[in-house]
Amino acid sequence: MVFRTTIQVETHGEGEIVNLTPRVEQAITASGVQEGIASIFIVGSTAAITTIEYEPGVLSDLRRALSVIAPDDIPYAHDAAWGDGNGRSHVKAAVVGPSVSIPVIEGRLACGTWQQIVLLELDVRSNRRRTIHVTVLG
Amino acid sequence: MVFRTTIQVETHGEGEIVNLTPRVEQAITASGVQEGIASIFIVGSTAAITTIEYEPGVLSDLRRALSVIAPDDIPYAHDAAWGDGNGRSHVKAAVVGPSVSIPVIEGRLACGTWQQIVLLELDVRSNRRRTIHVTVLG
Amino acid sequence: MVFRTTIQVETHGEGEIVNLTPRVEQAITASGVQEGIASIFIVGSTAAITTIEYEPGVLSDLRRALSVIAPDDIPYAHDAAWGDGNGRSHVKAAVVGPSVSIPVIEGRLACGTWQQIVLLELDVRSNRRRTIHVTVLG
Repeated sequence: MVFRTTIQVETHGEGEIVNLTPRVEQAITASGVQEGIASIFIVGSTAAITTIEYEPGVLSDLRRALSVIAPDDIPYAHDAAWGDGNGRSHVKAAVVGPSVSIPVIEGRLACGTWQQIVLLELDVRSNRRRTIHVTVLG
Repeated sequence: MVFRTTIQVETHGEGEIVNLTPRVEQAITASGVQEGIASIFIVGSTAAITTIEYEPGVLSDLRRALSVIAPDDIPYAHDAAWGDGNGRSHVKAAVVGPSVSIPVIEGRLACGTWQQIVLLELDVRSNRRRTIHVTVLG
Repeated sequence: MVFRTTIQVETHGEGEIVNLTPRVEQAITASGVQEGIASIFIVGSTAAITTIEYEPGVLSDLRRALSVIAPDDIPYAHDAAWGDGNGRSHVKAAVVGPSVSIPVIEGRLACGTWQQIVLLELDVRSNRRRTIHVTVLG
């Protein structure tokens, strides 16, 4: 069986990290699936999905780490060509990736206690509406 | 239902990035699946799969970013042991990862307009035949 | 059909890398699935799953590469807040990711010959019991 929910999230700027876990749990409950997989996918190329402990300190540590590979203050070929200033956003998103797959066990997400599913807003625009698809297979 | 297509791609050197999206779309159409998941997986440990805007500037930005963690000009223990000179290729591939999972909605890939599925050729050999499996579950 | 096996692995310290491939192969055989997907997921936010050649040289190269984005010798906001000294572990785990999905073809994992499924132990504690779920869909 295949069940899909589409989540809309408003983000407010570069570096915002949104905890998607409660809404993914709701999707699983709505699906009725007891055993299977939840696949979480972000539409767009300047945001990413991963898991992390949703704690302000470690989220800022993650932002710093991503800026090592894609610093704010270097030139980007993407920006030279398109002038939208988000070359670094694309690079970080491609490295982290757009999707994670998480087991559903007895109708619940199998994440650890300190392991949340997060959306990384990496774009430089201030207000974006993000679309995340949660597909439950079971 | 499970449907699989295997794609063969010729690559021509380190840093080549191939847009797989049209061939993944074809696989989905061939599968007949309307709602489900497409899982894209690269066989081998010196290439990777992710999503990015398929635009030359940002692809070169991504190459530069990956060289921060795995530069060309440092010694690699892998190369010391095996002499094949692709230690950096393995490292980049392991960090980016071999697979993405993307929803299929109304018979179409749910990627964004500027979000393509790409193969990153990271190996140092000039001509490689790469095998990518596209599995559609629905 | 959905089949799940839960693997327990003991790890012995930061930087240990465990080859999960034989146990994932066993899970696939136990499932009886001939064609489908195996999804491998690590519970917890200080370890990660990826694929790499399981060869000591390249494993040490990977450790070095991850320390570029999350060095041992810088302050972490996570550590300042919680004092557990594993800020770098969380950061590396979030970048590599908790899951991979690999095709099952004719009852076998579709990995390359030199492509193993690995658990990266990134935490600083010496002895941990790790839980990995292998879900086979087919």
